[in-house]
Amino acid sequence: MTPQPPQSPQPSRTPRPDPETGAAVKAADRAHVFHSWSAQELIDPLPVAGAGGAYFWDYEGNRYLDFTSGLVFTNIGYQHPRVVAAIQEQAARLTTFAPAFAVAARSEAARLIAERTPGDLDKIFFTNGGAEAVENATRMARLHTGRPKVLSAYRSYHGGTSTAINLTGDPRRWPSDNGSAGVVHFWAPFLYRSPFYAGTEEEERDRALQHLADTIAFEGPGTIAAIVLETVPGTAGIMTPPPGYLAGVRELCDLHGIVLILDEVMAGFGRTGKWFAAEHFDVVPDLLTFAKGVNSGYVPLGGVAISAEIAATFARRPYPGGLTYSGHPLACAAAVATIEVMADEKVVENADRLGTDVLGPGLAALAARHPSVGEVRGMGAFWALELVRDRETREPLVPYNATGEAAAPMAAFGAAAKKHGLWPFINMNRTHVVPPCNLTDEEAAEGLAALDAALTVADEHTV
Amino acid sequence: MTPQPPQSPQPSRTPRPDPETGAAVKAADRAHVFHSWSAQELIDPLPVAGAGGAYFWDYEGNRYLDFTSGLVFTNIGYQHPRVVAAIQEQAARLTTFAPAFAVAARSEAARLIAERTPGDLDKIFFTNGGAEAVENATRMARLHTGRPKVLSAYRSYHGGTSTAINLTGDPRRWPSDNGSAGVVHFWAPFLYRSPFYAGTEEEERDRALQHLADTIAFEGPGTIAAIVLETVPGTAGIMTPPPGYLAGVRELCDLHGIVLILDEVMAGFGRTGKWFAAEHFDVVPDLLTFAKGVNSGYVPLGGVAISAEIAATFARRPYPGGLTYSGHPLACAAAVATIEVMADEKVVENADRLGTDVLGPGLAALAARHPSVGEVRGMGAFWALELVRDRETREPLVPYNATGEAAAPMAAFGAAAKKHGLWPFINMNRTHVVPPCNLTDEEAAEGLAALDAALTVADEHTV
Ligand SMILES: Cc1ncc(COP(=O)(O)O)c(C=O)c1O
Ligand SMILES: Cc1ncc(COP(=O)(O)O)c(C=O)c1O
Repeated sequence: MTPQPPQSPQPSRTPRPDPETGAAVKAADRAHVFHSWSAQELIDPLPVAGAGGAYFWDYEGNRYLDFTSGLVFTNIGYQHPRVVAAIQEQAARLTTFAPAFAVAARSEAARLIAERTPGDLDKIFFTNGGAEAVENATRMARLHTGRPKVLSAYRSYHGGTSTAINLTGDPRRWPSDNGSAGVVHFWAPFLYRSPFYAGTEEEERDRALQHLADTIAFEGPGTIAAIVLETVPGTAGIMTPPPGYLAGVRELCDLHGIVLILDEVMAGFGRTGKWFAAEHFDVVPDLLTFAKGVNSGYVPLGGVAISAEIAATFARRPYPGGLTYSGHPLACAAAVATIEVMADEKVVENADRLGTDVLGPGLAALAARHPSVGEVRGMGAFWALELVRDRETREPLVPYNATGEAAAPMAAFGAAAKKHGLWPFINMNRTHVVPPCNLTDEEAAEGLAALDAALTVADEHTV
Repeated sequence: MTPQPPQSPQPSRTPRPDPETGAAVKAADRAHVFHSWSAQELIDPLPVAGAGGAYFWDYEGNRYLDFTSGLVFTNIGYQHPRVVAAIQEQAARLTTFAPAFAVAARSEAARLIAERTPGDLDKIFFTNGGAEAVENATRMARLHTGRPKVLSAYRSYHGGTSTAINLTGDPRRWPSDNGSAGVVHFWAPFLYRSPFYAGTEEEERDRALQHLADTIAFEGPGTIAAIVLETVPGTAGIMTPPPGYLAGVRELCDLHGIVLILDEVMAGFGRTGKWFAAEHFDVVPDLLTFAKGVNSGYVPLGGVAISAEIAATFARRPYPGGLTYSGHPLACAAAVATIEVMADEKVVENADRLGTDVLGPGLAALAARHPSVGEVRGMGAFWALELVRDRETREPLVPYNATGEAAAPMAAFGAAAKKHGLWPFINMNRTHVVPPCNLTDEEAAEGLAALDAALTVADEHTV
């Protein structure tokens, strides 16, 4: 196939306002759909009529540029025609089949993923999503090492099932926290809000590594099965680790026989401008978890890429984990098509270019104009703006984990963005710029202009 | 739509032997797919070329009647044309969208499910599969009651993620068992291997309820958030509970303010000859978990049906759980089509009829002829044959959790079934008869004949 230039696929249906249908969809939703992470009576879900490329629209004729990629999963945008066609084709051929068999779509997806994962991570265990990937990676590490504990970072998200939520380092963990389930949290580097009172990236890196080495020493290296880290923490704030940090973590793992699990559920598959974020840091983990971008979320799929050494542990001893839909053919066919599209249309290269040439400079320009922007950081199609009341003190625009009135300034910012046709990603005091990786320059410019307008509202809440 | 007679859909592609493609699919599988519940070098995955209705076939031209329904999920068989078309149509319209919005396919799936779930279980929280459903039901129960512990039964399976596997009562739990994570196991009724030395169904029921009441008393009722039970335990052996048992459990729950979670991931959506197995026992749980049959596994989907009372707990207080693909539009569209097919084609009624008129009598006749059959039990399209070395002592044909040489008699039985064109479900010393719920009488007769031949091999291992 000859490579094609990056393109934002067009919707298969054009928007047609139809408020009545929208009202019916919403009524049934309110009657019967129980929504995640929400107080059911305090939400007001927007009925969505359709989507294409980087846009979606409601039944009232409003169209939004989606700077969230859903929950950061539509790395090739909505309704890419080649992937839609591949799903239709696989549906006609073999929609589903049990995991114990060899199935063409599953074999091919595993091969294409293994071809792209770093180092010798050549065996793929498929799941339906990210949490199950983290659950299984943790199980593999515990059984491979025979050790009970797992270390993970504050300012992280690893999923909603028991082990994944206990590993998580944000407030979503608290209601499901069952205490000492073998998880220990440490602090990862984050210069803008340094836990280590560091003044430079080098200092932050060195102190963060010292902190981790000390934590390992005091927890007991022989009790630690794994360290789990998002290569670039996503929902928690897109904190690109300083050069050398992950290599230092890898060294500590090697020194103590600890398994390094890099969670690339959000950072993987082009998001950072490489197939996997680990490539930026020249680090090969022992296990790498993925989901989301693997097939742009068109069909639920996740998985763990496994090193030769860990795979060997389960060569003649059964791996004691599974799920009904491991390697679901329809999901795998969508992954095959997505990866082919990403390769042919140079989507990863486009994300890289976007970051360097368009979003990076564009967001820096916004920061220069808007006092509410405390920091801009990121790479590829993976950016965070830290909104602050005061650039000097770095006091967040809203307090950590604020809700209701306390979160009003961020809500006002969000409403302003929507008024300008942009659907923004908001988490606490941050907005993330996480559009599809095949965003065009024109779309980026449109989004930046809307952000510009919305930040004017945020500015009103600075001191 | 006018109701149509039950039918077994035909394959969209006819089998065409093509051993070379099969070899390539297998080679890529062996190189890159890490299989669940398996020692990777001790398995030999059969490459599957296609499937339709109750059959699938390999690349060598062998066709098998599937008495496993995959992992007991293809309740309407493979490749039902209406569901395939619905998937293709939804793929063209809106393949994926984030959970916080109202989406037509999601609203409609929730409505159709809520219409069928017992009692006031009218709010649906969607997941990708069964384990995530159990994880979330458990979280809801713990937060609703403010209590830490959950009781579940030995001889059960609830999924592979941390809480689900800890709730599980079979050997798959052991390698992932992290001890006291708030789970306590008790014994549920199973007259054939009574834990209570009972001689009749009534005695078994009464003693099982006494045992549960005692366990609750000694664990402390105020510490128990939920009791989780498969309405009819599936993989563990299809032990239909004696009349009155589940009503007794419901009473104990009401007495102590304990949430009753019925896990119908396997038993739900027609498998037992009712939409939900709870209907057989006139019991309404507080939470009901489902997956598999909800869309015959065509796209990964599961969920929790939630009572009005528990939903109210999360009306103004956020429910702290979620996953990226909650209510995935493609999966929900497949559920809508599957439920419509099941209603129009009277698939549930067919499962009921099959159990009463065809499989029940047919399996009883086999038991009469084969000394290796210790017991036949089940209902609908959900049957277990307990294979024994000795009918008198009920010694299982192979020991509990046997592998390798020790499991050889069951392996020989399985190989004989395959030789006769039947793909059997085997778990320890049992074979389960769990075909699609829309199996025809002719297909049932074909399967029973193959079982007959295979049981002759099992008979050789009786005393
Ligand atoms: C880094 C990371 N890991 C794991 C998960 C959990 O994935 P899922 O929601 O598919 O279970 C997420 C979801 O946002 C994530 O961002
Ligand atoms: C009763 C029951 N609950 C839960 C599960 C787990 O479902 P899944 O494999 O989709 O996670 C299963 C799977 O077989 C099951 O039979």
